[in-house]
Amino acid sequence: MLKNPIGFKTYALEAGIKYQNKKDVGMIYSETPCVYAGVFTSNKVFAAPVKLCRERLKDKIQTVVVNSGNANACTGEEGYQDALNIALAAEKTFELKNAKALSLSTGVIGVRLPADKIILSIQKYQKSVESPEEFSKAIMTTDSFPKAISKTFKINGKDITITGFAKGAGMISPNMATMLAFIITDAFIDAKIQKKILHELTENTFNAITVDGDMSTNDSLIFLSNGMSGVKINKKEELDLFKQNAFEVMEFLSKEIVRDGEGATKLIEIRVENVKNKEDAKKIGNAVSNSLLVKTAFFGNDPNWGRIAAAAGYSGAKIDQDKLSIYFIDQLIFQNGKPLPFDKKEMTEKLKNSKEVLIKIIPETGSFSKRFFTCDLSYDYVKINAEYTT
Amino acid sequence: MLKNPIGFKTYALEAGIKYQNKKDVGMIYSETPCVYAGVFTSNKVFAAPVKLCRERLKDKIQTVVVNSGNANACTGEEGYQDALNIALAAEKTFELKNAKALSLSTGVIGVRLPADKIILSIQKYQKSVESPEEFSKAIMTTDSFPKAISKTFKINGKDITITGFAKGAGMISPNMATMLAFIITDAFIDAKIQKKILHELTENTFNAITVDGDMSTNDSLIFLSNGMSGVKINKKEELDLFKQNAFEVMEFLSKEIVRDGEGATKLIEIRVENVKNKEDAKKIGNAVSNSLLVKTAFFGNDPNWGRIAAAAGYSGAKIDQDKLSIYFIDQLIFQNGKPLPFDKKEMTEKLKNSKEVLIKIIPETGSFSKRFFTCDLSYDYVKINAEYTT
Repeated sequence: MLKNPIGFKTYALEAGIKYQNKKDVGMIYSETPCVYAGVFTSNKVFAAPVKLCRERLKDKIQTVVVNSGNANACTGEEGYQDALNIALAAEKTFELKNAKALSLSTGVIGVRLPADKIILSIQKYQKSVESPEEFSKAIMTTDSFPKAISKTFKINGKDITITGFAKGAGMISPNMATMLAFIITDAFIDAKIQKKILHELTENTFNAITVDGDMSTNDSLIFLSNGMSGVKINKKEELDLFKQNAFEVMEFLSKEIVRDGEGATKLIEIRVENVKNKEDAKKIGNAVSNSLLVKTAFFGNDPNWGRIAAAAGYSGAKIDQDKLSIYFIDQLIFQNGKPLPFDKKEMTEKLKNSKEVLIKIIPETGSFSKRFFTCDLSYDYVKINAEYTT
Repeated sequence: MLKNPIGFKTYALEAGIKYQNKKDVGMIYSETPCVYAGVFTSNKVFAAPVKLCRERLKDKIQTVVVNSGNANACTGEEGYQDALNIALAAEKTFELKNAKALSLSTGVIGVRLPADKIILSIQKYQKSVESPEEFSKAIMTTDSFPKAISKTFKINGKDITITGFAKGAGMISPNMATMLAFIITDAFIDAKIQKKILHELTENTFNAITVDGDMSTNDSLIFLSNGMSGVKINKKEELDLFKQNAFEVMEFLSKEIVRDGEGATKLIEIRVENVKNKEDAKKIGNAVSNSLLVKTAFFGNDPNWGRIAAAAGYSGAKIDQDKLSIYFIDQLIFQNGKPLPFDKKEMTEKLKNSKEVLIKIIPETGSFSKRFFTCDLSYDYVKINAEYTT
């Protein structure tokens, strides 16, 4: 069941940014100031709100305003002023003391944000819906379903809740691959530890997924904890439990993004196993996950493992093709550089009937493994992105 | 007009590799041994014929056998023996002395090559067609048209001819992006100079194009000169003239590959101008050329320059978005990080009516510029690659 951690409220507002009668602004409000950590796009062309969110990494945050329909990216100095004005308006509306607001945006790049409309909607927030479900819908762009999850667990006999929201279906690439995600909790965590956890968990969740390999200008992952459960995370086992739950929230959201990848019909898990070093595992996983030929083959239910081998080969990882092995679903079909016979018709049928597919790539003998999630590339990806106009 | 340089013959043979009644083997024969230079895929998973062609870089070459329909890649030690046996059979058939044969393949990965059928077709070569046009057709795979050109020019009053053939429409990426190409000439050039020219010209032709960013296991560019024009390239101005003509041959072929990109409706030229260093120009050009969002926008005739800015931003090049400018066709639409107003309807119409589009990306002030060629991504790319089965 989706529920907000103690002290958090989430709103869905109507600002009329791109369309009328559509909830296009989401707002998170905490009754007390939150410890804030964030991970952002590494794109050198980053949106104005990313700049603002980065500047406030040392502040406590109490309110977050998120709009869909306009990314406020490539909008110059005016765009930054717009983002700032939205944050200031939220701070004034909620009469924040010792805490600040964040402003985030997603949607079209290069068009000036109608900040006035958003500010007006914030001021009228009491007339809007307060609900985590509605919040998760208000932040959607090309998403076909909302992405949200809550986990509640006990520490020292008291409930802690972690709730996560995400939006994103295209412009998804492994280097901070979320578009926008918000993780909120009522646990009390030390700021440094919170930051460390966020970066550690991002590596194997939002940074291990791809839809199209296009890195967004707006990717932001915001982590807020208000401590209102009264439970402080202290001991190692408490931290481990908290991390496990936070990981499950982030993994669920990141897989949901891939599952909802524009036009996707399949979720594909790529496991790169027994590699000597982490960097090579990443290179192989990224190359295979982003290969158009691999992705179109999956759409066609074609067990074309040769394209997987080729992508691993050009990934930049140190690969000796005579030591390379590939498992397709549960079958070893390429072993130490040699193809093994398999029933292609049967495998094609298996693919046709699978919404989730597992591929294992084993380049050599080592102790490091890494998982990646990608999706297939269909006619609908082309349709969505050829017709989604500026 | 397409013609072979003096002393060269090109054949189109039928081996029945994948289909019956289809010319699927091309053969180049020179009356005298040729100086040979080559550039090959940097894919760590490379096909058996690539291994063979690399091993023979120090030899003189007199015959080249090329098959379509089967790439002889990921075929292990047996695949290498197949490639070698084809070369040996060609050497025997033509009774080569002091020169060797090459064997090259393109097509499906991971399926054993029917070498016997190819050897049989070589032995019956006298019954086949000798024609450069037919040769260029025999090496096609998913190509929708053959790609070939001849240039004849005079040095010291004598004719020199350079003829080039290429095949490739998919699995095209900037790092040796040709699938297969053959440049043959009757000029006499020193081996070291020939090698130097080939690598220099490849950088701005076959290495500056992309269709889908997937690097092939088989990419090979073979350069042969037999010297039978009797003209030796000596002086600087002779070399310059030769290089200019070789460049035109290679540029024509590489642009033809992009124009024939699987499902492509447009040839897109990306000029990265005024960059401080070559590496950053390459990073920007490659990222923009391979961006799915950029490519689908072009298919939809959408002047979505924001996606171009985003791709430049994540390219890995040092970019300051406040100094970034973009020209779309002939119009400056993003200047020093700020969008400029433009007539979107007019630009969409221009795109609809253009088979070739020019984009200029100017990240800063510098003296280095570089051109890239890419194509749009259409439904047909997905169709061709989802349905092209192993």
